Amino acid sequence: MLEALKRIVYEANMELPRRNLVTYTWGNVSGIDREQGLVVIKPSGVSYEDLTPDSLVVLGLDGRVVEGTLNPSSDTRTHLELYKAFPKLGGIVHTHSPYAVGWAQAGEDIPCYGTTHADYFYGPVPCARHLTQAELDEDYEKNTGVVIIEEFIRRRLDPVAVPGVICHSHGPFAWGKDARQAVYHAVVLEEVAKMAAFTRMVNPNAAPAPQHIVDKHYMRKHGPNAYYGQKG
Amino acid sequence: MLEALKRIVYEANMELPRRNLVTYTWGNVSGIDREQGLVVIKPSGVSYEDLTPDSLVVLGLDGRVVEGTLNPSSDTRTHLELYKAFPKLGGIVHTHSPYAVGWAQAGEDIPCYGTTHADYFYGPVPCARHLTQAELDEDYEKNTGVVIIEEFIRRRLDPVAVPGVICHSHGPFAWGKDARQAVYHAVVLEEVAKMAAFTRMVNPNAAPAPQHIVDKHYMRKHGPNAYYGQKG
Amino acid sequence: MLEALKRIVYEANMELPRRNLVTYTWGNVSGIDREQGLVVIKPSGVSYEDLTPDSLVVLGLDGRVVEGTLNPSSDTRTHLELYKAFPKLGGIVHTHSPYAVGWAQAGEDIPCYGTTHADYFYGPVPCARHLTQAELDEDYEKNTGVVIIEEFIRRRLDPVAVPGVICHSHGPFAWGKDARQAVYHAVVLEEVAKMAAFTRMVNPNAAPAPQHIVDKHYMRKHGPNAYYGQKG
Amino acid sequence: MLEALKRIVYEANMELPRRNLVTYTWGNVSGIDREQGLVVIKPSGVSYEDLTPDSLVVLGLDGRVVEGTLNPSSDTRTHLELYKAFPKLGGIVHTHSPYAVGWAQAGEDIPCYGTTHADYFYGPVPCARHLTQAELDEDYEKNTGVVIIEEFIRRRLDPVAVPGVICHSHGPFAWGKDARQAVYHAVVLEEVAKMAAFTRMVNPNAAPAPQHIVDKHYMRKHGPNAYYGQKG
Repeated sequence: MLEALKRIVYEANMELPRRNLVTYTWGNVSGIDREQGLVVIKPSGVSYEDLTPDSLVVLGLDGRVVEGTLNPSSDTRTHLELYKAFPKLGGIVHTHSPYAVGWAQAGEDIPCYGTTHADYFYGPVPCARHLTQAELDEDYEKNTGVVIIEEFIRRRLDPVAVPGVICHSHGPFAWGKDARQAVYHAVVLEEVAKMAAFTRMVNPNAAPAPQHIVDKHYMRKHGPNAYYGQKG
Repeated sequence: MLEALKRIVYEANMELPRRNLVTYTWGNVSGIDREQGLVVIKPSGVSYEDLTPDSLVVLGLDGRVVEGTLNPSSDTRTHLELYKAFPKLGGIVHTHSPYAVGWAQAGEDIPCYGTTHADYFYGPVPCARHLTQAELDEDYEKNTGVVIIEEFIRRRLDPVAVPGVICHSHGPFAWGKDARQAVYHAVVLEEVAKMAAFTRMVNPNAAPAPQHIVDKHYMRKHGPNAYYGQKG
Repeated sequence: MLEALKRIVYEANMELPRRNLVTYTWGNVSGIDREQGLVVIKPSGVSYEDLTPDSLVVLGLDGRVVEGTLNPSSDTRTHLELYKAFPKLGGIVHTHSPYAVGWAQAGEDIPCYGTTHADYFYGPVPCARHLTQAELDEDYEKNTGVVIIEEFIRRRLDPVAVPGVICHSHGPFAWGKDARQAVYHAVVLEEVAKMAAFTRMVNPNAAPAPQHIVDKHYMRKHGPNAYYGQKG
Repeated sequence: MLEALKRIVYEANMELPRRNLVTYTWGNVSGIDREQGLVVIKPSGVSYEDLTPDSLVVLGLDGRVVEGTLNPSSDTRTHLELYKAFPKLGGIVHTHSPYAVGWAQAGEDIPCYGTTHADYFYGPVPCARHLTQAELDEDYEKNTGVVIIEEFIRRRLDPVAVPGVICHSHGPFAWGKDARQAVYHAVVLEEVAKMAAFTRMVNPNAAPAPQHIVDKHYMRKHGPNAYYGQKG
């Protein structure tokens, strides 16, 4: 079942080591079939060399495994919460890419220092707060998703305009209209985290980019009057 | 038309990923045929894997497309302004190479800390100011060029002696006598930005190189008494 | 003798350059056969290109060479001390991987800033003190091991829960249930040292991860209720 | 003539790009035949792809070209001064490797922060002062050598125990008993410069390694009682 989606999710997972976003098994990508309400995700702890499209796990949004003999990614419930709260998401990726983790461990939003960032993320990449002991005890992975969603609601962020987040003391999640775009955004997030770290290295007190430049760059690529790239 | 120039511009574009200066489509190279007043440039948003010499766009200095079915790079008008203002430029390149972006996001000139820098850039790599809201509304890409030119005039810089610039909150443009040399200078600019960042990492208060050493190194490679390399 | 162990130790040594953990000959891996009390270790100063399983040296825990014509690694006595003090160790690795060395040279524990770290190291990676002149004169390599062991005892650390250390002004040692896992932990240690350095770059005053998150992540992968990866 | 030496110098030059020590043509290696008093050096501005053993230039210690149709490296006179002052040198290399340049541009000695450094450089890597205007006008490249030699004399350094230097606002020179060992030391110098920069990133106030540890590590590899590696 879901052969086409499995192929896309498989390819998106394999893109992670090619783009140097993962060490060992420290990452996972999922994709969703919105009509059937089914999610395809990487199995837990399986190395990328051993991964095959058939080894992917299929589950419902309630977490019940529908197909697959392996355990799904330990982060699966985070993915499911995000899919349920953000209906435009078609793919989600989690990594421990090092510059994004550097910011997550510092517990700071990645400031929108420039146009590379504004081309894809409309404003800072938010840093979601720590889970409390109670949230962690109840359901760590589910509540990781809940806290991310809470952060987006509190700040009135559109997850399409801000396609990723960093979780304090943990690392990045990114997403997109499908698994392929989710990985694209994960690559951008790491690149933007790197450039922002270099900016801090040069001047720890650097200011974010002015709002009119952020607006311009985001709108140049997105929205009704976008003119970057090729039509159709 | 312009087959030889297209080949040069194509090869210069392909050098960007080989030299690790671009992620995805974040860069573009153009070249100009001064006699015919025609510019060849990368199409917008086309991946380097899909790029062919035939997919390049040919346009006049007024921006009219003369050949090609794809949209030219969204940065085309910046290139055109620079070609019009600086008649010795034969090629221009724009990238989002990460160390140069780090400095651009910090909004500082890259100081001429040493001889690697002085061998190619006679003095600091200037950081051009932000566009105002009005400049941005009128024509963002054209005025990006206008602001760069203004910076060179204001500082009395010779674009042959300072073959590149960083734009505040954005990134680098570099140029040369042809597209190939423009990319060479983009590589140097990134390398120099990296070394300057390392210098700041070691000592945030490091001083620029003394003027007599900057003069010596620049003149050793350039001007009537240059003696680096092979004659003819 | 010990052909299977030699093969494992050989492969673990060859993994060091593949994972970019060593320059030239700056690293060594050993493995132990606990039943026979014999250790297999890389010979001293032999390049990885020239290394073969047959060139490995076999010795007793007392340091007597049992097989092999080459000198064992100059760090051999450090390995032997660790095997004698920590009976659960099956493999040990020493490298000069650059980020771990950066922390070792700073003389600071690597703080547990996040979950990547807590997934493998339960708490900070300890920095063991300098040897005194007397310790160094008596037996430098043996006492390097003694000082590491002392540090673990003093802090009541379990070497299974904290599978590595950095030695002040020197570099990292890591270990595991076998040579392969020891190298895995050396890779993790370098990755964690890199992320922690990036965290300092972003914010020199960043705080370690809260204890309940450290506990959760370590226990998710280790101990009786672990649920990461696949069963059996 | 000097076919064996040319082969060694050629291979040593080609090792520079393989070890990521040079961008474009920013480096050169020479070797000397002490009996004949002849030096073999890379020609100026020739790319490593185009370099062949036959294109190397042979000259006397007085700088007269004995064989070769190309101009020798523009840094040739620096090499010659060092060969004349330091009779134990058999090979010399100059690069613009980025971390060593970072320190050179900061104008600071690279502190001996740890054992990786002490294994090869007995004490800090000295930073030689700027040339004065007069020294530069007289003969820039020759006086670059003179200033390095002066620095070693003033500090009573043995160039065998400290096989390299960084020149303020410029970059590193390294040397050894032959061209191959000179490149080995250039690799070590860059690696040590990188680790020292990481140490500063972690703690800008880190202290150098204690002298008794520096002594131990240097002597473990060098001098009459060395016991690293294999005998004979």
